[in-house]
Amino acid sequence: MVPRKTKSKLRIISLGGLGEIGKNMTVFEYDEDIIIVDCGLAFPGDEMLGIDLVIPDITYLMKNIDKVRGIVLTHGHEDHIGALPYILQELNVPIYGTKLTIGLVENKLREHNLLKTTERNVVTQGDTIKLGNRFKVEFIRSNHSIADAVMLAITTPIGMVVHTGDFKLDYTPISGATLDLHRLAEIGKRKVLLLLADSTSVEKPGYNPTEQLVGKKFEEIFANSIDKRIMVATFASNVDRVQLVINAAEKFKRKVAIVGRSMINVVKTATELGYLSIPEGMLIELNELKRYRDDQVAIIMTGSQGEPMAALSRMASSDHKQIDIKPGDVIILSSTPIPGNEKTVFKVVNELFRKGAQVFREDTHVSGHAAQEELKLVHTLLSPKYFVPVHGEYRHLQKHAELAVELGMKRNNIQIISIGEVLELTQDTCKVVGNVTSGQVLVDGLGVGDVGNIVLRDRKHLSQDGLLIVVMTLERASGLVVSGPDIISRGFVYVREAENLMDEAKMVVRKALDRCEQKRIMEWSQIKTTVKDDLREFVWQKTKRSPMILPIIMEV
Amino acid sequence: MVPRKTKSKLRIISLGGLGEIGKNMTVFEYDEDIIIVDCGLAFPGDEMLGIDLVIPDITYLMKNIDKVRGIVLTHGHEDHIGALPYILQELNVPIYGTKLTIGLVENKLREHNLLKTTERNVVTQGDTIKLGNRFKVEFIRSNHSIADAVMLAITTPIGMVVHTGDFKLDYTPISGATLDLHRLAEIGKRKVLLLLADSTSVEKPGYNPTEQLVGKKFEEIFANSIDKRIMVATFASNVDRVQLVINAAEKFKRKVAIVGRSMINVVKTATELGYLSIPEGMLIELNELKRYRDDQVAIIMTGSQGEPMAALSRMASSDHKQIDIKPGDVIILSSTPIPGNEKTVFKVVNELFRKGAQVFREDTHVSGHAAQEELKLVHTLLSPKYFVPVHGEYRHLQKHAELAVELGMKRNNIQIISIGEVLELTQDTCKVVGNVTSGQVLVDGLGVGDVGNIVLRDRKHLSQDGLLIVVMTLERASGLVVSGPDIISRGFVYVREAENLMDEAKMVVRKALDRCEQKRIMEWSQIKTTVKDDLREFVWQKTKRSPMILPIIMEV
Repeated sequence: MVPRKTKSKLRIISLGGLGEIGKNMTVFEYDEDIIIVDCGLAFPGDEMLGIDLVIPDITYLMKNIDKVRGIVLTHGHEDHIGALPYILQELNVPIYGTKLTIGLVENKLREHNLLKTTERNVVTQGDTIKLGNRFKVEFIRSNHSIADAVMLAITTPIGMVVHTGDFKLDYTPISGATLDLHRLAEIGKRKVLLLLADSTSVEKPGYNPTEQLVGKKFEEIFANSIDKRIMVATFASNVDRVQLVINAAEKFKRKVAIVGRSMINVVKTATELGYLSIPEGMLIELNELKRYRDDQVAIIMTGSQGEPMAALSRMASSDHKQIDIKPGDVIILSSTPIPGNEKTVFKVVNELFRKGAQVFREDTHVSGHAAQEELKLVHTLLSPKYFVPVHGEYRHLQKHAELAVELGMKRNNIQIISIGEVLELTQDTCKVVGNVTSGQVLVDGLGVGDVGNIVLRDRKHLSQDGLLIVVMTLERASGLVVSGPDIISRGFVYVREAENLMDEAKMVVRKALDRCEQKRIMEWSQIKTTVKDDLREFVWQKTKRSPMILPIIMEV
Repeated sequence: MVPRKTKSKLRIISLGGLGEIGKNMTVFEYDEDIIIVDCGLAFPGDEMLGIDLVIPDITYLMKNIDKVRGIVLTHGHEDHIGALPYILQELNVPIYGTKLTIGLVENKLREHNLLKTTERNVVTQGDTIKLGNRFKVEFIRSNHSIADAVMLAITTPIGMVVHTGDFKLDYTPISGATLDLHRLAEIGKRKVLLLLADSTSVEKPGYNPTEQLVGKKFEEIFANSIDKRIMVATFASNVDRVQLVINAAEKFKRKVAIVGRSMINVVKTATELGYLSIPEGMLIELNELKRYRDDQVAIIMTGSQGEPMAALSRMASSDHKQIDIKPGDVIILSSTPIPGNEKTVFKVVNELFRKGAQVFREDTHVSGHAAQEELKLVHTLLSPKYFVPVHGEYRHLQKHAELAVELGMKRNNIQIISIGEVLELTQDTCKVVGNVTSGQVLVDGLGVGDVGNIVLRDRKHLSQDGLLIVVMTLERASGLVVSGPDIISRGFVYVREAENLMDEAKMVVRKALDRCEQKRIMEWSQIKTTVKDDLREFVWQKTKRSPMILPIIMEV
């Protein structure tokens, strides 16, 4: 599908995170060198029944495994690092990232027993590394909803490519410093061949307020809730947000308990690496909570997206072992629902209200993705020759392209590409030349890629109308029924309420078998088809439902 | 559960639409008379796999069937009339509503063959009817996102109760006139014992803009798209919105085609009854479209919520027989996503963008539910003694109660009740005294109520990890296996990729059977349990998945 290269060109392929949410992975290829930017997972869509998570299809990389020089990470969010434990098992290459990012990756590698076999390289914002013969990668200080995020300035033989990763602009960030505008200006002054930039929040006019604003709101809520128990739910990975709760707790002299496995892990790692500063003696264990009065504690936990297994949802449904919500509790939801999660979030909020809690959801969160004015600044500072919008659904990519045009970029110099498409660049051209194998690999339990469309289609069918199993034992020689037919159903209808229906169904099967006998049909497969067709028709007429029908013939 | 009444009191029971979205139904009872307000359906939640729709549990009404004087309808939306075809089959009582409402109900009754057996009574805004000996119901002109909506002023022996139904305030509505503020003022001047009011949009500060604004936006889009094909997607029931498209089409001399079965039905009914005014010769059939140029037509259709079977979604996924989206098409989404629908709506929007269409979603919709300032007006005009917030999730009811307190109402005079709770009123008291059977009845195909928790739990289980069927034929006398064991799986794993796994699983079953034989276990049920337990353990160890396991023993 990809034409052979006649001379050296830069090729860029997105294997994930384009026109979709999550599983970000971008491939840069020049001659005999390939580098990979990010290696994220996506959470399964509603139609992916039973699937735990989704990772990129790396068939193309496995075919070119000898060329791959390493994986460069922009920050430590799941949609940028979460696929590493699965991908590294196939593609064992060195990884590069800042301290916090690598720290969070190491947690994952430890769980998957991959720590010993994986080469990790910690870089500092501002560092430049050489990868293979063709690439130099500079890690530019950036802002995002996690500390230690970077943009990448990738020097290639034909020019400079900047990949923003996820970013926003915060003039007064909680940890670290502001996005390195000076460096962007310098790079822009020279010449940027291509910009790949975050499109997630391109629909939002204006700019994002600073994270400090959330801190002010937290303090206001703490100040107005002096005698109440205070709980804050946010993303486990949002280390800065956790710091804001710690700060408010310190000011109002409260102890802090951390709830939720992923939150505990992240807090531990971030503290060890110096990204969280927690006063000595402030943290208490969950089981120590009962020794303190409500006005002496604050609780930080997961579950701000209504995730059913997370701490907050369990508390809301009285399903948490240690903490019960009680009237007067103050609960801060410090995130906005990700599209698709609204219903589950509101379900949790309703339950909390019902238990008499006060719920705060306004001004308790700021986004981690650049809004329009922030995007304009980065486009202007870098003034690239070519532009490829990344990170966003298709409408975001389109909108981001329009924004670039408004800023004066030529429409022909903008490429909206899809997953798997190969973008080929020279100093004077930028075009799609073909595509490679790409897509999503489903992870279910221990299985990676062993659940595909047929299995999902069956799960969907079973979930809609359940199943009917028709089982009978036939005599090999004569084809006569020696046992059954029996009908067993699951997920179809209350059998007790439908006893007549099941009896009639059995009659339908018997008649089908009789017909086969009269016609001297001896082929098991043909008998099965006859039984299945008759039963399907009968059930549809009676119930207007189409359960999966499985005829099973045993022979003796 | 309900104490016997010692003397005449008014009882109010909500059988739906409280603390949830949809299936609105409120019961008013006094001595020997019961009246029912609305009879709506709800759409199934994500956890209700395979369910088509949800209706209220009317056990309480069936026990008191002799008392029921009729069903009074506030407006023609599904969540207020949609359960009628199911409920009327059990509880055949007269229904009362305005012309458009009854017209839309009749469409439904016709489909369910209930037209002949149902007594319909058409009232006009402003009418008062007597129901039984104890109730008089006045239909007060209201505004909502469908024409001919009413509030109800119910005169009871102990005082006046006002039920707002769904409402908003529009000073310049498209059809009909403004909510009858004068009448509300008059009623309020006398004395209102109890107000039940719509809480859906109570979280929204300020007021809703008039529907006319949407008309202006439509005209602006039409004016800027002179040479393009224009399509508008909205709710089928939003007759006024359809009128706005008709108006814009008339101004810009376009023919109009209606797409989608429910849209066609509603347009037909509304036109016949005089709620839609369509210039002669403007409507064209879908198959006539090809005879017109793009700049000569506008298309009105369903699917604004991303419903997968509706016209717009089918077009977006190139699955519509007559209409293909092409670059340049102008598509107006005239609704905002209902919480939970965001993902599907955005999926459609992305597809439309991908096909090169222009999509308009801003200022193309106004809500049909009163925001805070509108609610304050109605509370103030009516100044009721008691207040019960209705129509909304729990957090909305709570917020609406707070709003009433801010307006000066005593907190003790406000009751937030749940479905099934019995609220008992005298002239001086308003309190919950017990509760009656209530809940949701699931409709799946032709089955009403035959799918319950066990069936849903099985569907859920099957949808997550699929199933393994183990089937074997045993000899009755000896207990020896004469055929099998065979293992059949569906929705579990690609069998081709897992051949070894299935072979090993069969070995596990054989070993379990051997063990049973050695221990001389002859009970089929015990054999089944042994097989199931061993296989479950094996599969979990190998895959970390828990498919449903169904052992089946045939005997010969």
